[in-house]
Amino acid sequence: MAFTYNRLDKNNAAVLLVDHQAGLLSLVRDFSPDDFKNNVLALADIAKFFGLPTILTTSFEDGPNGPMVPELKAMFPDAPYFARPGQINAWDNEEFLAAVKATGKKQLIIAGVVTEVCVAFPVLSALEAGYEVFVCTDASGTFNQTTREASWSRMEQAGAQLMTWFAIGCELHRDWRNDVEGFGGLLAGHLPQYANLIQSYSVQKG
Amino acid sequence: MAFTYNRLDKNNAAVLLVDHQAGLLSLVRDFSPDDFKNNVLALADIAKFFGLPTILTTSFEDGPNGPMVPELKAMFPDAPYFARPGQINAWDNEEFLAAVKATGKKQLIIAGVVTEVCVAFPVLSALEAGYEVFVCTDASGTFNQTTREASWSRMEQAGAQLMTWFAIGCELHRDWRNDVEGFGGLLAGHLPQYANLIQSYSVQKG
Amino acid sequence: MAFTYNRLDKNNAAVLLVDHQAGLLSLVRDFSPDDFKNNVLALADIAKFFGLPTILTTSFEDGPNGPMVPELKAMFPDAPYFARPGQINAWDNEEFLAAVKATGKKQLIIAGVVTEVCVAFPVLSALEAGYEVFVCTDASGTFNQTTREASWSRMEQAGAQLMTWFAIGCELHRDWRNDVEGFGGLLAGHLPQYANLIQSYSVQKG
Amino acid sequence: MAFTYNRLDKNNAAVLLVDHQAGLLSLVRDFSPDDFKNNVLALADIAKFFGLPTILTTSFEDGPNGPMVPELKAMFPDAPYFARPGQINAWDNEEFLAAVKATGKKQLIIAGVVTEVCVAFPVLSALEAGYEVFVCTDASGTFNQTTREASWSRMEQAGAQLMTWFAIGCELHRDWRNDVEGFGGLLAGHLPQYANLIQSYSVQKG
Amino acid sequence: MAFTYNRLDKNNAAVLLVDHQAGLLSLVRDFSPDDFKNNVLALADIAKFFGLPTILTTSFEDGPNGPMVPELKAMFPDAPYFARPGQINAWDNEEFLAAVKATGKKQLIIAGVVTEVCVAFPVLSALEAGYEVFVCTDASGTFNQTTREASWSRMEQAGAQLMTWFAIGCELHRDWRNDVEGFGGLLAGHLPQYANLIQSYSVQKG
Amino acid sequence: MAFTYNRLDKNNAAVLLVDHQAGLLSLVRDFSPDDFKNNVLALADIAKFFGLPTILTTSFEDGPNGPMVPELKAMFPDAPYFARPGQINAWDNEEFLAAVKATGKKQLIIAGVVTEVCVAFPVLSALEAGYEVFVCTDASGTFNQTTREASWSRMEQAGAQLMTWFAIGCELHRDWRNDVEGFGGLLAGHLPQYANLIQSYSVQKG
Amino acid sequence: MAFTYNRLDKNNAAVLLVDHQAGLLSLVRDFSPDDFKNNVLALADIAKFFGLPTILTTSFEDGPNGPMVPELKAMFPDAPYFARPGQINAWDNEEFLAAVKATGKKQLIIAGVVTEVCVAFPVLSALEAGYEVFVCTDASGTFNQTTREASWSRMEQAGAQLMTWFAIGCELHRDWRNDVEGFGGLLAGHLPQYANLIQSYSVQKG
Amino acid sequence: MAFTYNRLDKNNAAVLLVDHQAGLLSLVRDFSPDDFKNNVLALADIAKFFGLPTILTTSFEDGPNGPMVPELKAMFPDAPYFARPGQINAWDNEEFLAAVKATGKKQLIIAGVVTEVCVAFPVLSALEAGYEVFVCTDASGTFNQTTREASWSRMEQAGAQLMTWFAIGCELHRDWRNDVEGFGGLLAGHLPQYANLIQSYSVQKG
Repeated sequence: MAFTYNRLDKNNAAVLLVDHQAGLLSLVRDFSPDDFKNNVLALADIAKFFGLPTILTTSFEDGPNGPMVPELKAMFPDAPYFARPGQINAWDNEEFLAAVKATGKKQLIIAGVVTEVCVAFPVLSALEAGYEVFVCTDASGTFNQTTREASWSRMEQAGAQLMTWFAIGCELHRDWRNDVEGFGGLLAGHLPQYANLIQSYSVQKG
Repeated sequence: MAFTYNRLDKNNAAVLLVDHQAGLLSLVRDFSPDDFKNNVLALADIAKFFGLPTILTTSFEDGPNGPMVPELKAMFPDAPYFARPGQINAWDNEEFLAAVKATGKKQLIIAGVVTEVCVAFPVLSALEAGYEVFVCTDASGTFNQTTREASWSRMEQAGAQLMTWFAIGCELHRDWRNDVEGFGGLLAGHLPQYANLIQSYSVQKG
Repeated sequence: MAFTYNRLDKNNAAVLLVDHQAGLLSLVRDFSPDDFKNNVLALADIAKFFGLPTILTTSFEDGPNGPMVPELKAMFPDAPYFARPGQINAWDNEEFLAAVKATGKKQLIIAGVVTEVCVAFPVLSALEAGYEVFVCTDASGTFNQTTREASWSRMEQAGAQLMTWFAIGCELHRDWRNDVEGFGGLLAGHLPQYANLIQSYSVQKG
Repeated sequence: MAFTYNRLDKNNAAVLLVDHQAGLLSLVRDFSPDDFKNNVLALADIAKFFGLPTILTTSFEDGPNGPMVPELKAMFPDAPYFARPGQINAWDNEEFLAAVKATGKKQLIIAGVVTEVCVAFPVLSALEAGYEVFVCTDASGTFNQTTREASWSRMEQAGAQLMTWFAIGCELHRDWRNDVEGFGGLLAGHLPQYANLIQSYSVQKG
Repeated sequence: MAFTYNRLDKNNAAVLLVDHQAGLLSLVRDFSPDDFKNNVLALADIAKFFGLPTILTTSFEDGPNGPMVPELKAMFPDAPYFARPGQINAWDNEEFLAAVKATGKKQLIIAGVVTEVCVAFPVLSALEAGYEVFVCTDASGTFNQTTREASWSRMEQAGAQLMTWFAIGCELHRDWRNDVEGFGGLLAGHLPQYANLIQSYSVQKG
Repeated sequence: MAFTYNRLDKNNAAVLLVDHQAGLLSLVRDFSPDDFKNNVLALADIAKFFGLPTILTTSFEDGPNGPMVPELKAMFPDAPYFARPGQINAWDNEEFLAAVKATGKKQLIIAGVVTEVCVAFPVLSALEAGYEVFVCTDASGTFNQTTREASWSRMEQAGAQLMTWFAIGCELHRDWRNDVEGFGGLLAGHLPQYANLIQSYSVQKG
Repeated sequence: MAFTYNRLDKNNAAVLLVDHQAGLLSLVRDFSPDDFKNNVLALADIAKFFGLPTILTTSFEDGPNGPMVPELKAMFPDAPYFARPGQINAWDNEEFLAAVKATGKKQLIIAGVVTEVCVAFPVLSALEAGYEVFVCTDASGTFNQTTREASWSRMEQAGAQLMTWFAIGCELHRDWRNDVEGFGGLLAGHLPQYANLIQSYSVQKG
Repeated sequence: MAFTYNRLDKNNAAVLLVDHQAGLLSLVRDFSPDDFKNNVLALADIAKFFGLPTILTTSFEDGPNGPMVPELKAMFPDAPYFARPGQINAWDNEEFLAAVKATGKKQLIIAGVVTEVCVAFPVLSALEAGYEVFVCTDASGTFNQTTREASWSRMEQAGAQLMTWFAIGCELHRDWRNDVEGFGGLLAGHLPQYANLIQSYSVQKG
C-alpha cells in the first residue's frame, strides 16, 4: 500500500483562521497565554510571508465570544472575513465555503478555538470534500489536555495531518535560499531561543 | 480512499449511560471529582436538551458498586433502566440490547465507568453490530491515565470516534440559531469560564 | 520556643472575599474552572453556615475586570460590599478597613483573585495589623503554579496560615455533633466523592 | 469495512510472561514499584483464576538481569519455563515457540519487561504468525514514558490490542454470575479502593 | 541559635493512626491506591517491629466514613481504639488524649486521612502540648496535591517534622546490627525494588 | 513577634538585571521561551514605568555566555552597565556595588539567569548588607524545576521575598488612579488574557 | 489483512543523523540535556557496533545553527557528510539522496533535530520512496511535548515505525550470543542503571 | 535580626559522599538515571577541582546495597573510605566522624542515597554539632518526589542550605579569573547545553 507524501506547497495552500476571538481565547488552557498568542501570530506571519490566501471567520462576535483578536484583523485587512450568524461548523456557512473554493487551493491549513469544535468540524468537512487538510495544532487551543487528545484522535482517524506552525513554515519554505533573511527573521520573531542563537552568532562573527 | 464524515445527527442518535454508580465513581482518578461530575451531568443535559433517547444501566447495584448516581436517575425518570444481573458488557444483556435497537437510531453516544470495561466493551460490540459509535471521553472515567490511554487506543483502532461532551453538544446543535438561549444556558451551566464571559457581556452591554 | 495553636474559632473569625470578578476569573489557571468555582462557593457556604461576618470587595468592577460573580452577590445580599475606586490592596481602602475592624474579630479568612496580589497584599497588611490570618488557598487563584508558589512563600514567611476550604470548615465546626446534618450536607454539596459515600451508605443501610 | 470484535475468550487464550526478572525490574520507571508489582501479580492471578495456559521465560537469568521474580515462579510451578540462552525476542527461541503452539490457543496475552523489546518483539512476531495479540500494558514496564509511548505506537500499528489487567480480567469473565466471590476476591486483592467499597458494604449491609 | 536534633527514639515514641477508614480512603488522591495502602501498612509494620505504643481512632465509623481498614485492626488487636463520637480533632477526645498521655512518650508519629484535618489538627495540638511531632507524610493522604502542600506548610510552620515511613523506620532502627534480618524483611516487604536487590543478591551470592 | 510588611515603594526601590545574556538564556528550561521572554520584558517595562533606577550587568559577555539581550540594552541606554571581568557574584564587583549604593535605595528587585547563582548570590549578599530584597522569580530562570526549588529555599531562608513581575508591578503602583491607562497598557502588553478582557470590554461598551 | 513484521536487519539498515548541531540542540526541550546527549551517542554507538552505513548532514552549519556536535564527527570520520546549502528536507539534497541510495539498504534509521522538520520530512520522503523507516524517537528532539506528539502522529500515519535507541539496538542484535561482552558494554555505557546491575553482579559473583 | 551569608569557602569546606552504591542507586527515581549519574560525577569533579577533602562511606556494601559506584572510588583513591558495619547515620560511625573532624573544615557539603536517610541524618547531626551544612540536592536521590520534598523540609527547618552542584561549584569558584579554562571545562563536561555554547562560540570566533 504505497504512501504518498502530501507535502505542503506554497502554491497550493490556503489558511483558515477560525474563531480566534477575545472571549473564546479565555477558554484556552492547553497552552500558556504567551505561548498561544505567539503560536497564532506565527501562523499568521507564515500566511503573510508566503502570500497564502487566508480566510477569517468568527462565531457570534457581537456576543460574549467577543471580537476577532485585533492583531489578526490588522494583519489581514483585505482577507475574506465572515462573521457567522450561527453555524458552529464554519464549513456550513455558504459564504465561507464559497471563499474557500474561490482560493482554488487543494491544501488547507486550519487553526482555531476551540480545537474539538471550531477546528475539528471544518477539518472533517474539508476532508470529506476531498481537500488535503493540515491542522496547525499549536495555533489551536481548547479547555484542557484531555479534550485536545480526543480531538486529535478524531482528526487523525479521518486523515488530517497534525502539524505545528514551525513545521508548516519549514515545509512551505523548502529551501532557505528562497529567502534566508526573510525566513530567518520570521523564525527569530517567534522563537526567542532561536533569536538568541542569531544574536550570539552575529556578535561572535563580528 | 474517500473519507465520510459521520456527523452526529440529533435525529439519529441515542445516549447510553453505563454504570455511573456511587461506588464505582470512587475508582475514577483520571479526572478531578468536580470535573467528572460536571462532565457527566453536562452529557445528561445534552441528552435532555436534544431529546435523545437515553438508556441507563448499572452493574450489581445492590452490592458494593452502589446505586446509580441520583442526579442521573432524577433526570431520566422514564428512560429504560437496566440493573444488569451479572453481564459485564452491557451489550450482553438482552433487554439492554433490545432497548438500544428499539431506539431505531444508528448513532450511539456512550459514556460510563470504568472506561476500559463498561465503556469499551459495549463500544466494540456496537461497532461490530454496525453502529456509528461516539465515545464521550470526559464523561467516562477510570483508574489512571495509563489505563485511559490503553482503552482509547483499543476503541480508536476499532473505529470509534473519541469526543467530549462539549464537542458532542456542538455537533448536535449545528447552528446557534436553532436555540440561542437554550444552548447558551446549557453551556453556561457547565463551563464556569463561559458563564463568566456571558456575565461580563451582559453587564457591559447593559 | 513554645508554639501556640491559633485555632480558627467561629466566634472570632471573619471572611474577606476579594475580587472574585467575572473578568479576573478568566486569568485563573492554577485550578480547573470547575474545581475553582466549587472551592469558592464552598468557602462561601462555610461563611454562611457558621454565620461568619463576610465582607466583599471588587476592583474596578465597571471595567474589564468585570462584576463580582453573581452567586457570591446573591449569597451575601446584606454583607458590606466595597467596589474599590482604585486601591489594589483592599486594606488601603478605608471603608473596607473600617468594615473589617467593625466585625470585632481577630481571625481573618481571606480568599481572592489573583493570589499574589488581591490576596497576598491584604494578608500581609492584616498580619502587620496584628490579625491572625488564614489564607483559603483553594478559593484563591492565579496565573500559574509558579506564581502561586511564590505567593505562598511570601505569605508563609509573614506568618499566615495556609489552609483549604475543607480544613477551614472542619476547624470551625470542631465537633460533628454541633450539627451533623447541616455540616454533612455542606460537605456533600461540594465533595462529589463524599456525596457518593453518603449515597451508598444510605442505600445500603436501608 | 466491517469491524470484528476479537474478544478475549477464556477457552482460547494463553498468557506469556516475558523477562519479569529481579534485575530488569530495576529498570522499570514508568510505574511506581508498588503499582507495577501489583499489576504483574494481578495478571498472574487472572491467569490462574481462569486456568489459562501460561508460559514463563527469562533472558540471561544467571547474569545481571537476575532471576525470575519468585512470586511468579511460585504461582506457576508446573508451567513451561524457558531460560533463554541468548535470543532477545522470545519468539526466536524454538522451545518457547513450540510451547506457545502446544497451547493450541489463538489469543495471546503478553506482558514483560522491558516493553519495547521483551514485549514488543514477540508481540510483532505473534501478529505475523496470525495470532490475536493482547498486550497487558500495565504489567509491562520500561525506562520512561517516552519509550512506552513509542512502543505502544509500534504495537498498535501492527494490530495488537492494548489492554490492562483489569480489562483483561473483565473481558475473560464476561458475567459476574460465573463466580461472584472468586472474581470479586481477585479484584479486591489488587484494587485497594475496591476492597474498601466491599468492606464498607459488608459492614453497612450488616 | 543552636539546633537540637530531635531524633526519633524507639524508647520514647508512640504512633497515632487517625481515621484510616474504608470510606475516607476513597477521598485520597494524592497517592495511587497501591502506594498508599503500602505506605500505611509499612508504618504499621514499623510500629509493630519496634514495639511502639500505637493508638487507633476513627471518626463516625458507623456512617459513610466507614470502618477502620481491617488490616490495621487485625495488626493491633489490643491497642487502644477510639471511635470518636464527633470530635474532628482527635486531640479533643478526652479518652484519646488520656491514652496518648498514658504512653508516657514524648515523641508522636502521626498519620491519617485526610492530611489537612485528621492529621494536621492533632499535630498542631500535640505541638502546643509540648510533644515532638513527626508526621508520616506518605501514610497520610488527602484530596489533591494542592491541599497537601497547604497542610504541610501549616505543620512545618508549627514545628512538626515531615518524614516518610522509610525515614521513620531507619531513624528508629539506628543500626542494622540491632536486627539485620528483621529490618531487612520489613523493608523488602514494602519496597519491591529493594526486595529485587535482595533476591538478585541471594541468587548471585549463591 | 510582630511582623513588619516591607512593602515595595516606588521611591525606594532599584532593579538589578543580572546576566540576561543570549547564550545563558539557552540554559533556562524552567519556563517556556515565550513565557520567559515575556516575563523579563515585563519586569523591564515596570522598571521604566515607575522610573526605578536600574542596573545591568553581564558575565563574560565576550565568551560563550553571549551578549546582553538586545531588548534590555535598548530599553536602558543610559543605565549603569557592568560587563564583569570574572566575578560570578555581581556583588563582588566593586563598580556594580558602588552603583547599587549610589541609587540610595533600600529595596532591591533582583532577577537574572541562572537563578541559583546569578540571582541567589547577590540576593544573599544584599540581605547581609541590610537591604530589603525582592526576587522577581519569573524573570529569573534556570536549568530545571528542582534547581529552582533549591534556590528558592535558600533565598527564603535568608529572608528574601519571592515575588513575580505582576505582583511587583501591582505593589509599586498601589492605586490604579495613579495612572489607569499607563498601568493598564503595561499589563495588557504582557498578559494576553488581560488584553482580551480589555478588547472585549471596549467593543461591548462601545 | 496479514501483518508483516519488518524487522530491523543489521545487513539491510543504514543510519541517517540529521542536523545534530550545537546551536539547534539548544532548542531541544522535550528531553533533559543529559538524557538527550546520551540518547544520541547511544544511537551512534549502535551504528558503529553493527557497522551500519551512516550518513551525516547539517543545515547551514556556518550560521547560527552551529557545527555538527564534535562527538558525532569524531565517531564517523569517514562517513558521508553533507553540509546542506539550503534544503530543509535533507532528502531534497541530491548528494545526500545519492549517498542513501549508495548504501544499498532498504531500512533507514533516522534521528535528528528538530523532530517535526529535520526528522519528519526525510522520514516521509523515504516512505514515499519505498524504504522501511524506523524513527529513533529518543535521539530526535524538539521544542516541547506537544510538538513532538504532533510530529509522531504524522509519521505514524505515514507508516514509519517509532522506536528508541534501546529497541533498535536489541532488534539489530537479535541474540546476545552474537557478542555478549560487546553488546553488554554498549548498554552499560548508556544505561547507568544497567551498569549498576552489572557492577553488583560482578562483585557478588566474585 | 541580621542575616549572615555563610558562603561556601574552598579553604573551609569538605565533601561527604554517602552511600552512592550500585544497589541503592536502583532505588533513586526522583531523577532520570542519566541526570543523576551526571550530577554525582559533577559534584565529585568539583571536589577534585577545588581540592576539597572528601570522605566516602558505604552501608553494608557486601550485601544487596552493593559496592560504591566504581567511578567515585577511582576518582578518590586516597580519600578516607568507611564501609560502615551497620550504622545507618554515618555520623554515628566513630571513624567517619573522626575523619570529618580531621579535615578541620567547618563547612560540609553532603550528598548521598537516599536523601531522607543517608543524607538527612548526617545533615541534622552535623548541624547539631555546629557545622555549616550545604546539601547537594541534585547529587542526592530517593524514591520519589514526595519523599524528596518531605526530606528537604526537615533539613531546611534545621538550617541546612539546599544547593545544587552547579551553585556549589560557582560559589566555591567565586571568580572565573581564578581558572577560566579549568572551570569552563568542568562545566562543559557536565552541562551538554553549555558545551554546545562553547563549541558554537569557538567555531564562530574562529
